[in-house]
Amino acid sequence: MNNIEVCFSPQLYSLHDSENRIVVVVDILRATSVICTMFHNNVKKVIPVKTIDDARKHKDNGSIIVAERDGKKLDFADFGNSPFYFTKDIVENKELVYSTTNGTNAITIGKNAKEVVIASFINLSAISEYIISKNEDILILCAGWKGKFCLEDSVFAGALIEKLLESGNYSTICDSANASIDFWKLAKPNLMGYIQKVAQRERLRKLGLDDVIEYCHNIDLSKVIPVLENDYLIDISKK
Amino acid sequence: MNNIEVCFSPQLYSLHDSENRIVVVVDILRATSVICTMFHNNVKKVIPVKTIDDARKHKDNGSIIVAERDGKKLDFADFGNSPFYFTKDIVENKELVYSTTNGTNAITIGKNAKEVVIASFINLSAISEYIISKNEDILILCAGWKGKFCLEDSVFAGALIEKLLESGNYSTICDSANASIDFWKLAKPNLMGYIQKVAQRERLRKLGLDDVIEYCHNIDLSKVIPVLENDYLIDISKK
Repeated sequence: MNNIEVCFSPQLYSLHDSENRIVVVVDILRATSVICTMFHNNVKKVIPVKTIDDARKHKDNGSIIVAERDGKKLDFADFGNSPFYFTKDIVENKELVYSTTNGTNAITIGKNAKEVVIASFINLSAISEYIISKNEDILILCAGWKGKFCLEDSVFAGALIEKLLESGNYSTICDSANASIDFWKLAKPNLMGYIQKVAQRERLRKLGLDDVIEYCHNIDLSKVIPVLENDYLIDISKK
Repeated sequence: MNNIEVCFSPQLYSLHDSENRIVVVVDILRATSVICTMFHNNVKKVIPVKTIDDARKHKDNGSIIVAERDGKKLDFADFGNSPFYFTKDIVENKELVYSTTNGTNAITIGKNAKEVVIASFINLSAISEYIISKNEDILILCAGWKGKFCLEDSVFAGALIEKLLESGNYSTICDSANASIDFWKLAKPNLMGYIQKVAQRERLRKLGLDDVIEYCHNIDLSKVIPVLENDYLIDISKK
């Protein structure tokens, strides 16, 4: 029986034994939804970088830069963080450098784990099946907002845990996992209705960026399986 | 309109603006339930201390010491952390030094706040009325377990928030507060049934200390209002 834990914030990550687990990074609004969209449209590699300085160095080397802080595109970046930018004609066979307020930090700190995978509602079934096939303990790492708990990431954690428990090969005694199951229980009958109250919706609305919210809660739009390989993400569903 | 935030772990406390808020410390299993019991039985002062060394120094000065780590009474302590120890004949008019794994740490880090109050199911209505009378923004600080999220503390946060919202003078856009409201929504119809899944119940059961769980979920056993004054707690309901 494999074990499931959930970490509600990157700031609590060091409290978990992550070395022997697959770490599943979740940032529904918007980083992991965007990454899944990029791979759905056949991007070749996504290179997550933690700091603005790192992103700028890549810019100097001629890379395509996708970077935001507090929701807003950085001035030197080629693109901000809306999934709608990354159509096939823009990203196919390209390498993108990617840096966001919360999501890329979560990916970076997961590097000590057995494996790092990227999950969102968009690839829920594909990533669940992949995780189940690996047959390992997992830690779902919610990216949160600047270290704080974010409800939409935890709702997704509950949806993923439901799939894993249904396989019969997972169990949990983690309070954060049990809490996530409860969120999903409440949200599942009307996900868009439930998600109206999350703080990130209001942050994006103020910036005129809330057009992405419904898209980011679409289940199973794609079969991509983004995983971290060395310092970049690739889609192993296409291997 | 006053604002409500919830902090799920002392490790996330620095992310909140606590200086201009009343901090409400919650450690249902067991520290804040025990403190309320001590005051219900007329203890004079409770002196929370963070480290084992601090507790030992007080022992050398002849104080009565209540101290545990990982649930177990420390060898030099006079009492462990069960609320059942602190009957009137033991504590009336006494000063107790108190140190626990999670709760006393949370009380200590709250010291920068406008005021620190101690809450549990045992004094839910009394502490709600006191907070409402103060008419300030509040931060509910869940003690958690060694930095990790604990479900029972957050369920209580939801019960307290319900009371504050009913007064009409509070609102929240904090995801942790909205999550807590959801926990309470699920738990309220059958609190003891809901709480069966929490990890701390299992930790206490293994130590044979789970006889306190039902007691710690009794609502409104007492009208005590423990607040931090300088470096010690007193019950201001008796002032």
